[in-house]
Amino acid sequence: MATMRAAVFVEKNRIVLDDKPIPEVGPLDALVRITTTTICGTDVHILRGEYPVAKGLTVGHEPVGIIERLGSQVRGFFEGQRVIAGAITPSGQSFACLCGCGSQDGPDTRHGFRAAGGWKFGNTLDGCQADYVLVPDALANLCPIPDGLSDEQVLMCPDIMSTGFSGAERGEVSIGDTVAVFALGPIGLCAVAGARLKGASMIIGVDGLSERMNVARGLGATHIVDFKKGNVVEQIMGLTDGRGVDVAIEALGTQGTFESALRVLRPGGRLSSLGVYSSDLHIPYDAFGAGLGDYSIVSTLCPGGKERMRRLMAVVASGRVDLSPLVTHRFQLDDIEAAYELFAHQRDGVMKVAITP
Amino acid sequence: MATMRAAVFVEKNRIVLDDKPIPEVGPLDALVRITTTTICGTDVHILRGEYPVAKGLTVGHEPVGIIERLGSQVRGFFEGQRVIAGAITPSGQSFACLCGCGSQDGPDTRHGFRAAGGWKFGNTLDGCQADYVLVPDALANLCPIPDGLSDEQVLMCPDIMSTGFSGAERGEVSIGDTVAVFALGPIGLCAVAGARLKGASMIIGVDGLSERMNVARGLGATHIVDFKKGNVVEQIMGLTDGRGVDVAIEALGTQGTFESALRVLRPGGRLSSLGVYSSDLHIPYDAFGAGLGDYSIVSTLCPGGKERMRRLMAVVASGRVDLSPLVTHRFQLDDIEAAYELFAHQRDGVMKVAITP
Amino acid sequence: MATMRAAVFVEKNRIVLDDKPIPEVGPLDALVRITTTTICGTDVHILRGEYPVAKGLTVGHEPVGIIERLGSQVRGFFEGQRVIAGAITPSGQSFACLCGCGSQDGPDTRHGFRAAGGWKFGNTLDGCQADYVLVPDALANLCPIPDGLSDEQVLMCPDIMSTGFSGAERGEVSIGDTVAVFALGPIGLCAVAGARLKGASMIIGVDGLSERMNVARGLGATHIVDFKKGNVVEQIMGLTDGRGVDVAIEALGTQGTFESALRVLRPGGRLSSLGVYSSDLHIPYDAFGAGLGDYSIVSTLCPGGKERMRRLMAVVASGRVDLSPLVTHRFQLDDIEAAYELFAHQRDGVMKVAITP
Amino acid sequence: MATMRAAVFVEKNRIVLDDKPIPEVGPLDALVRITTTTICGTDVHILRGEYPVAKGLTVGHEPVGIIERLGSQVRGFFEGQRVIAGAITPSGQSFACLCGCGSQDGPDTRHGFRAAGGWKFGNTLDGCQADYVLVPDALANLCPIPDGLSDEQVLMCPDIMSTGFSGAERGEVSIGDTVAVFALGPIGLCAVAGARLKGASMIIGVDGLSERMNVARGLGATHIVDFKKGNVVEQIMGLTDGRGVDVAIEALGTQGTFESALRVLRPGGRLSSLGVYSSDLHIPYDAFGAGLGDYSIVSTLCPGGKERMRRLMAVVASGRVDLSPLVTHRFQLDDIEAAYELFAHQRDGVMKVAITP
Repeated sequence: MATMRAAVFVEKNRIVLDDKPIPEVGPLDALVRITTTTICGTDVHILRGEYPVAKGLTVGHEPVGIIERLGSQVRGFFEGQRVIAGAITPSGQSFACLCGCGSQDGPDTRHGFRAAGGWKFGNTLDGCQADYVLVPDALANLCPIPDGLSDEQVLMCPDIMSTGFSGAERGEVSIGDTVAVFALGPIGLCAVAGARLKGASMIIGVDGLSERMNVARGLGATHIVDFKKGNVVEQIMGLTDGRGVDVAIEALGTQGTFESALRVLRPGGRLSSLGVYSSDLHIPYDAFGAGLGDYSIVSTLCPGGKERMRRLMAVVASGRVDLSPLVTHRFQLDDIEAAYELFAHQRDGVMKVAITP
Repeated sequence: MATMRAAVFVEKNRIVLDDKPIPEVGPLDALVRITTTTICGTDVHILRGEYPVAKGLTVGHEPVGIIERLGSQVRGFFEGQRVIAGAITPSGQSFACLCGCGSQDGPDTRHGFRAAGGWKFGNTLDGCQADYVLVPDALANLCPIPDGLSDEQVLMCPDIMSTGFSGAERGEVSIGDTVAVFALGPIGLCAVAGARLKGASMIIGVDGLSERMNVARGLGATHIVDFKKGNVVEQIMGLTDGRGVDVAIEALGTQGTFESALRVLRPGGRLSSLGVYSSDLHIPYDAFGAGLGDYSIVSTLCPGGKERMRRLMAVVASGRVDLSPLVTHRFQLDDIEAAYELFAHQRDGVMKVAITP
Repeated sequence: MATMRAAVFVEKNRIVLDDKPIPEVGPLDALVRITTTTICGTDVHILRGEYPVAKGLTVGHEPVGIIERLGSQVRGFFEGQRVIAGAITPSGQSFACLCGCGSQDGPDTRHGFRAAGGWKFGNTLDGCQADYVLVPDALANLCPIPDGLSDEQVLMCPDIMSTGFSGAERGEVSIGDTVAVFALGPIGLCAVAGARLKGASMIIGVDGLSERMNVARGLGATHIVDFKKGNVVEQIMGLTDGRGVDVAIEALGTQGTFESALRVLRPGGRLSSLGVYSSDLHIPYDAFGAGLGDYSIVSTLCPGGKERMRRLMAVVASGRVDLSPLVTHRFQLDDIEAAYELFAHQRDGVMKVAITP
Repeated sequence: MATMRAAVFVEKNRIVLDDKPIPEVGPLDALVRITTTTICGTDVHILRGEYPVAKGLTVGHEPVGIIERLGSQVRGFFEGQRVIAGAITPSGQSFACLCGCGSQDGPDTRHGFRAAGGWKFGNTLDGCQADYVLVPDALANLCPIPDGLSDEQVLMCPDIMSTGFSGAERGEVSIGDTVAVFALGPIGLCAVAGARLKGASMIIGVDGLSERMNVARGLGATHIVDFKKGNVVEQIMGLTDGRGVDVAIEALGTQGTFESALRVLRPGGRLSSLGVYSSDLHIPYDAFGAGLGDYSIVSTLCPGGKERMRRLMAVVASGRVDLSPLVTHRFQLDDIEAAYELFAHQRDGVMKVAITP
């Protein structure tokens, strides 16, 4: 039985590169040989035991690669084709998917909904920090890479670009809006780019690191608020002349950013939450207008599926958004443990790493 | 100077009937002689000092009456015409109004947004528990009562019908949805009727009082959950075969109902909040899917303006919704203090009172 | 090789009952034994050669039956289970489906869109006027029938209920709207029911046959306009006091009804077109406000997929809509040619026929 | 009585500069001294008698100026303030406005809707090709110009920018969409910019003039189709690899562009019509998918009101869209007849003219 290398969750604080069998290809699957992948902040939560996964699971959910083998029922693709798949791989056929909630895809035997059930790679199925990954429901999830785009150009599509853009989409950013983005990590940076793509005229990025601020400016931030330089809410209310923002995007997953996002909203505004929270949230009575402020709070898990990937790659191909500055470091798969070491400690100004098997 | 009777907020726990001058009519106003009005739960918050208003303010925000005098710029109406106005009286001309947020209407000098700023009657302007009320921005707010409808038939339109229906509208209830409504007071009952009007197929009402349950059934509740008979979340999950609901409407304004509403949502579902909260809210980490559940939480203040009133009266006229069972008691304006006494203590099975000057 | 009976298109004006092999079940399919089906107006177009299909194709797209055999990849169902499938059977996995356009589902090899490509039964695949039908993409399309519902109660779900309701949904009917429905055949009658389910307060049905008018009243029409009694546009403008309607639903497929629907719209209104047209349409310059009237014209093909079917059956189960009066005649499959004869000529007050193998 | 100069419609083919009294200021009005205005294609229709207006009416609907006098009820502004108003001046207070249809604003005495009734300047009220213009419902329509923006920078906001952007907005352009814009006059060019602002990744402009093509490229067109170089539909289907476009924007007002726009749509796509038509339209049966293609056709009249103007000027201030290349010629008000001569004949590569009194 042929084997491959895979980054496997062993126990809290241990993800190691190990050998595993190359998976067998079922009728609905595709086996993809990974050519580039990356590490996500969520993988660090897994590493630290903050997000539970099964021991022995292969980690990673951002695959760029080449079709190695197609299941017997998977038509319209060919072996050797360059493809990506989303971090979220909806079946397209469950009640949840047919209800427009592919990210909350669940088993067909019941009602089809399971919170975050569309996230399978590196969560409930073996992921893609490996030589090969098995893509489930391949018809709905494989998306060919347009000619002329490199692996690194499309590496952000499966997760952070899809997630960040959805922050602006679910926030319903419209032409002429003022938007604030809380935290300028990779997701927040993509939210800035998404707000710009949706027509915001004023985009305020909030962070404390100057490199991130600079990347944010390049992606569309018109103003930067440094949380180290004073109260964030006051700074934003000052920048908006007391009006507040139409849409606030939370991109970190903490009470502090969530609460500030709520406090800078104009009445009737929308808080679009992207963060993964690890503790309860608190909504201050006054910040919520006692329930009379027409506020909306929406949370979004990364949209997936091949149509989403096709659209994101079309944006990259158009040259409208260039996320290549986010890839700050590159590693071989053999060195993935070092990559985790660097990324988990956010050393050396790392934003995203590219991993090549 | 002619005077009139008015229910005035004097201090905490004291609303009294007093004499005040009949207001002067500015160019944009209309003076309406009240023929019927009512007391709202919010008025009880004011009475108890839980919601602050200026001392000496006339209370009440649900006017049904007859045009006594029109401001010089108010065309298209005539004196003697039967009209209502919404509890919320947007100007139609502020930045907030033109942005679609009439309930958050604010002063024109700045940006136009003020939380709950569209609520003027009995909040920032004298209200309608009086012989006369001055309707601001009368062009946008006076709405003629269709022939054949009685005062009591349209008495719920200005506030609870508009608010309750908005719970279903902002919850985006669609055909075939399962909806749960938490608390079957007047607002919750109207939310039940609204969910039915929007096409829900399963409507679960939650309360503990049998009279309310009965009214809820008449307005469209297909199932009732009695919170006295066990855990509400478990009961609802049982009724829905473990699926949860598409939309949960909160109609009380407490942490308990808010949290239960969140816990019964299917992933991707919407919590539509109508309650007026008097303390902070808490979002349990797990009930929010750690931010990955695609949940939406929307809060809504009663929509106002004459077009809204026209539509609600059209629904009444069509016979599709009959809220007359909600009027359980009737008082003369001279007896309004007794009406407050009864209503504030929820004695004698009171749901809504009709006050006639 | 086992055979079955099937109503087959032979040539223009000839659909005959013939013997065909029982289809083989592929990995993604389900074989359903038909217990009840019906004939649709579209089948009459096929019969007359107005809508082209391949010679030898089995006709019919409204299946109610029992699972006879499941493909190897179809989990979550069991043989012997009572199910329906929609007239439209989207794969859920094409670009079109993942874009929210399941009715326009196309082949995966290209872009996924093909006009009306989601309509497969009796169009591009063998249909269900037969002893058995093969359901493609069974995971996305089989929907269990709730206990307690009879075949005839759910017989309208696959097509006319889904289509008629979509007229109101795509018309964005909202609470308090005035709606006109042009032609009260089965689709128009379901559009009336859909408008009512979406909260319309005034629903004007237009037709010339008194039996249809009566059924329309039972399903929610508040007013009826008889086109035999004078100009339809004038009658509707009179009923609405010169205002016009918010939404006009076209349910026949002719220039006359289309044009009248446009002419009764208030500025900013929506024409929701359900008809199948067999000739070009003409938009009079003035009826379109010279392009300045903010009018919308939307056309819709019957939404399909199991989630849609689940919701429609939930509406039936709730008792909110009872379409059983539409089944006016019943036939055995052996007599289907007689059923076509009756239905195609609209004899004997026929609305829908139930066919039982 | 003080007089002013005004461009007046005298009769077919005659608009002349004449003296008229400076208008009196009613309580709800503002008198604005024009500092810059322009001529619109619609004015040419008026000139030619194709769009009827009253003889003696002052033409023009794109005002940039300074508040000269405020009506007694107009607060929140000050005399001497630089402002614009939209071409469309909704009252904000009619049934139509409160229904979200400000462009279809009508008289309050009835239902509030009148086709294109929100267009008052140079249509039903005296316009702004004059020394002064009276702005009706000034509270809803005056919008201060942000510091630092010149007259010419905001000159396109009242009409063509608002109209062009609305083509993309009503077309519901979303991230990654393919959009085609038919005709690259000033409106079409703004539609290109709007499609870009809404996130389109491929924007195909269709025209025959190379100067317009160049401006289109600068505003976001990624591809240009020259109608002189072959069949437009075939060219676009070729560019999109046979898929068609998600949104087609019609920006001319002819059968040819309308029909081509429909023919290049993918099933389920949206035709967003901006043109002013002067004859009936024809929808070919096949291009409309016989009614089964899920197509939408939406028409839009320029959105107005001060919030719209505020947002458009925010976009200009952000530097995201620069329409200054559109102003190709400049005239004094005294020379407006020459300006009409040039503009009506589209001489000398004119796109827009700036008129300064």
